[in-house]
Amino acid sequence: MQRTQEMTSVQPDWENFYPRPVSDKIPFFSRDGRVYDCLFAQQFSRDLLTLLFRTADALRDVTQKKDGADHVGSLLSDKRAMLYFVQPSTRTFMSFLNACHILGVRTSEIRDTSTSSEVKGETPEDTVRTFSSYVDMIIMRHPTPGFVEKTAWLMNRTGRPVPILSGGSGKDQHPTQALLDVYTLHRSFNGDIDDKHIVMVGDLKRGRTVRSLSYLMKNYKKIKLSFVSPAEFRMEADILEFLKRHNIPFQETEDFKGVMKTADAIYMTRIQDEHDKAGESKSVDYSPFYFRKENLRDIKDTCVIMHPLPRRHEIEVSVDDDPRAVFWRQERNGMWARAALMAYIFGVDGKIR
Amino acid sequence: MQRTQEMTSVQPDWENFYPRPVSDKIPFFSRDGRVYDCLFAQQFSRDLLTLLFRTADALRDVTQKKDGADHVGSLLSDKRAMLYFVQPSTRTFMSFLNACHILGVRTSEIRDTSTSSEVKGETPEDTVRTFSSYVDMIIMRHPTPGFVEKTAWLMNRTGRPVPILSGGSGKDQHPTQALLDVYTLHRSFNGDIDDKHIVMVGDLKRGRTVRSLSYLMKNYKKIKLSFVSPAEFRMEADILEFLKRHNIPFQETEDFKGVMKTADAIYMTRIQDEHDKAGESKSVDYSPFYFRKENLRDIKDTCVIMHPLPRRHEIEVSVDDDPRAVFWRQERNGMWARAALMAYIFGVDGKIR
Amino acid sequence: MQRTQEMTSVQPDWENFYPRPVSDKIPFFSRDGRVYDCLFAQQFSRDLLTLLFRTADALRDVTQKKDGADHVGSLLSDKRAMLYFVQPSTRTFMSFLNACHILGVRTSEIRDTSTSSEVKGETPEDTVRTFSSYVDMIIMRHPTPGFVEKTAWLMNRTGRPVPILSGGSGKDQHPTQALLDVYTLHRSFNGDIDDKHIVMVGDLKRGRTVRSLSYLMKNYKKIKLSFVSPAEFRMEADILEFLKRHNIPFQETEDFKGVMKTADAIYMTRIQDEHDKAGESKSVDYSPFYFRKENLRDIKDTCVIMHPLPRRHEIEVSVDDDPRAVFWRQERNGMWARAALMAYIFGVDGKIR
Repeated sequence: MQRTQEMTSVQPDWENFYPRPVSDKIPFFSRDGRVYDCLFAQQFSRDLLTLLFRTADALRDVTQKKDGADHVGSLLSDKRAMLYFVQPSTRTFMSFLNACHILGVRTSEIRDTSTSSEVKGETPEDTVRTFSSYVDMIIMRHPTPGFVEKTAWLMNRTGRPVPILSGGSGKDQHPTQALLDVYTLHRSFNGDIDDKHIVMVGDLKRGRTVRSLSYLMKNYKKIKLSFVSPAEFRMEADILEFLKRHNIPFQETEDFKGVMKTADAIYMTRIQDEHDKAGESKSVDYSPFYFRKENLRDIKDTCVIMHPLPRRHEIEVSVDDDPRAVFWRQERNGMWARAALMAYIFGVDGKIR
Repeated sequence: MQRTQEMTSVQPDWENFYPRPVSDKIPFFSRDGRVYDCLFAQQFSRDLLTLLFRTADALRDVTQKKDGADHVGSLLSDKRAMLYFVQPSTRTFMSFLNACHILGVRTSEIRDTSTSSEVKGETPEDTVRTFSSYVDMIIMRHPTPGFVEKTAWLMNRTGRPVPILSGGSGKDQHPTQALLDVYTLHRSFNGDIDDKHIVMVGDLKRGRTVRSLSYLMKNYKKIKLSFVSPAEFRMEADILEFLKRHNIPFQETEDFKGVMKTADAIYMTRIQDEHDKAGESKSVDYSPFYFRKENLRDIKDTCVIMHPLPRRHEIEVSVDDDPRAVFWRQERNGMWARAALMAYIFGVDGKIR
Repeated sequence: MQRTQEMTSVQPDWENFYPRPVSDKIPFFSRDGRVYDCLFAQQFSRDLLTLLFRTADALRDVTQKKDGADHVGSLLSDKRAMLYFVQPSTRTFMSFLNACHILGVRTSEIRDTSTSSEVKGETPEDTVRTFSSYVDMIIMRHPTPGFVEKTAWLMNRTGRPVPILSGGSGKDQHPTQALLDVYTLHRSFNGDIDDKHIVMVGDLKRGRTVRSLSYLMKNYKKIKLSFVSPAEFRMEADILEFLKRHNIPFQETEDFKGVMKTADAIYMTRIQDEHDKAGESKSVDYSPFYFRKENLRDIKDTCVIMHPLPRRHEIEVSVDDDPRAVFWRQERNGMWARAALMAYIFGVDGKIR
C-alpha cells in the first residue's frame, strides 16, 4: 500500500491541513484509490456503498452455517485491533467489537482512560502511537473535534501506519453510523433508495446522524427530504446549503403528522441535551416530535421507522412490535456494515462475496 | 427452536407473569423440552444434573491434551457471548468468561455501567436488547430481583431471542452456583449423592447459595440436612417448608461441633453484611461458626469442606492444605460446570461426551 | 514439571524467604532448569537472552505472512491467561495482551480492582488463587513491593501452580522491560552488544528500567556505562556496588553533552515525580537532561536513542523522525520479546525458530 511522494510532501503541517475542505483531504486517507482511514461520511461513494452492502449481505448469509462462520472467522485471524473509546458508548463499541470477532480479528480495548498512561503526562498523540505499535488497526471514539482525524494524519506520516476507523469524533462526524443508516434504507427498500421521501425528526441541530445521512443522500436520485423539528433545533445552515448545491429538494416544518403520510422512511432522533449550554432543552416541548402507537395508522404500509438509538420517549415501546419499526434491525445492521468495511479495508471482502 | 403459540399467548404481561410459582414459569424459558434460559436452580432436574456432570467430566478429560482442547475450542467458535455484570464479581465473571473461551465462544463484556449508554437515559430493557443484537447469548448478573428473569422474558417475545444465563440475580437466585455446588458433591462422593448428611453453616438467612443448594437436595434420596447458624441468621421459613413438603429431614442448631462429626459435607458461608440494614452483623458473635485447623480432627476422613468463596475468617487459611478442603476445587468446578451448561444449551454437548 | 522435594521443604515461610538474595531464590521459581515464574531481571542469563532474541526474531519473521501468523497463533490456543493490573499501565498491558494474542492465548483481564471481589473482604492471596483456578498463566502488575513474588511463591506451594509473569512490581523490578531494552540493543547493534558505551540519562535514582538494565549489563563484555543525572537523582549505591563487583566501568556526570559524543546508546528517562514525597521534583532543573533536535548533530551516526516511554519533554518530538531514534521500535520490541518469553515458558519456542 503506497501513497505518492507528492501527497506526503504537499501536507506540511496539521494547522494547514485540518481546515481544508473534506473533499481535498480524502486522498490523504486513501491508498491505491481505496479508503484506508475511515473518517468522513463523504468518503462513501455510491459505488463503494453498493460494494459494502453486497459484502454485508454476503456476511449475514455465509455466517448462517457454522462452516461459513468459521471461514469468515479465519479471514483476518492474523490481525489485531485496538478499540480506544474515550467517550461512553455501548452500541458503537459492541457493534465494532463483534464485527471484529466475526472476521476473527483479535481485540484489545481502552474504555476508561484512567487506566492508561495518560496519568503519567503523555501526550494523546504518543498514546495513540503506542497503541499502533501493537495492533493492525485502531477504532477510535473521541469527544474532541478533529482528534480522530489528527491521529490518522499523524499515523500516515510514520513508518508504520495502521488504518484508523472513526467510531465518532466530536459533534460532527460518525461515518459508520451514516453507513449503517444507508444500509438500513438499502435493505428496507430492496436495494432501491432512489426516489424516496425521507423524513428526519427531532433535534436536527445537534444530532450528527441526521447530518451525515443528509450528506450521503447526494449519492441517490430524486430524494426528497423533510426536516421536522422544534424551532430551536432546526437543521444547520451548512447542510441546507449543501442540499441546495446538490439540487436535493427539502422542506422544514413543525407539522410531523402532515409529512408523515407520504414518508418512505421516518428517521427519529432523541433530544441531545448533553450538548446543552444552559439547560435550554428543558424549555422546549419535544412531545410533538414523538412517534406514538396511534401514528402507525397514519403512515404508509411500506414506510420504515428508524432511530439511531438510544431512545428515550420519542418512540413508544409498543411501536416496536410493528414490522415497520426497523430500528432494532438497523442497530444489528451496524455490526454487519462495519464488518464489511473492515473486510474491505484489509482487502478480503472478495473472499466473502 | 419453537415454543407453542399457546405459551406465548398465555403470558400477557410481566406484572401477571412474575409472581407465578417458578414451576409454572419454567416452560416459558425452555425450548423443545430443554432449558433455554438459565434462571432458577429449580430448572435442574436430576437427569439434567447427571447429564451436565458427565459433560463437565468429559470436558476436563478431553482438554488435558492439546488436540482435545482444540476440538472443544472449535465447538462454539461461531458464537459470541456478552457478559453484562452490573454487580462486582470476580469469580462468577472469570468462571463464565473462561468457560466461554474453553468452548471457543468469543466474548465481550460490560462490567462498569458508567461506560455504557445508560448515561444517555436509555431504559435497562433497551440496553439489554441492544446487547442481544450483537451476540448469541447474554450472561448477566444484576442486583435487582427479577431483572435477569425479566430480560429473558422480554427477549423471548422478540423476533430474535438469545439465551439468557443468570450469573446471580438479586438476593435470591444464583442457579449456576447451585449447579457447581452439586457438581462438587458429585465429584467428592464419586457420583453418589444419595444418603448423605450435609451441614450448612453461617449466615443462612441471607446467603443465596445455601438456599439454592437446599432446593436441589430434593433431587436426591435420603438426604439429611443440618442448619448451623446464629439465632439472628437462621434459614428462612420458605426453605424449611419446602423441605417438609418434600420429606427432607433437617435440624436447626447452634452446636457446630456436635453435628460436625457425622457430616459428609460441611458447607461454610461468610456473613453477608452487605445486606445489613443497620449494621446488625456487628452485634453477632460469628466465631462459633468458624472452621478451625483443630476441627480437622473432629470430622470424618471422607467429609468434604466446601465454601462458595470469597471467605473472610470463617475458614482458617491453614485448613487449605488438608485434602478434605475442596473449596478451591469447587471454585474450579464452576468453570467446567458452566462450560457444560453452555454446551448443552447450544446442543453441542453430545460432541464432547 | 517437577521441583525437588528438598526445595519445597527448605522454604518454610515467606518471612524467611523474601529477604534472601535474588540468586538464592531463583531456583524456587524454576522448573527443570528453566525459568517458570518471571520475576527478576537477574533470571535472564546471556544464554537465555540469546535464545529469547532468536525466538523473537523468528516470531516477527514468521508472522509476516498469514499462514505463518496462523501457525504461531495455534501454538498456545489451548492456554488461557489472566492479566491482573492493579497499577495504571497502557504499554505493558497492551504489549502483554497482544503478545498473548499472537500466540493464540485466550485472555481475561482485571484492570480496575473496584470490579473485583476485594470489596467483599477477600485477601489478595485468595483473590489471586481464584484467578489461577481458571487460567494457565497470570501476568501481574502490582504497586506493593514483593507482592508479585509472594503470589508466585504461594502458587508454587499449591497443588495446581501456574506461571506468574511480572509486569512490574513495586519500585524495583520490571524484568520484561529489561528484556525488551536488551533486545533493542541486540537489534540495534546487529546482535553484538559487547564493547559498547551506554549512557543512561535522567532520574536514575527512581527509574526501575535503568536499574534492571544495569544488572543485565554483566552478561556482556567490555561494557562502559555513563550515568547522567541531576545531583538529586543519581543512581543508587547498590547498583554502583554491583557494577564494581562485576568490574563494569562507569562514570557519573552532569555533563550530558560531553558523554553524548562517544555513546553507542543513549537511554533517556523521564522524571519519576509520582514517587515524590514532598514535591521535590519541582525544585530540580531537568532541562539539561533533555535530548533536543540540535543534539542529533552531536551523536555518532550509529548511536541509538532509547526511551522506555511514556515521555514528557525529555525528547523533543521532532527527534522522532531521525532513524537513530529507536524508542518506538523499542516499544514494539516489547511485544515480540514478551511473546518469545511466553513461548519459552510453555516450551513451544522450538516450534517457532
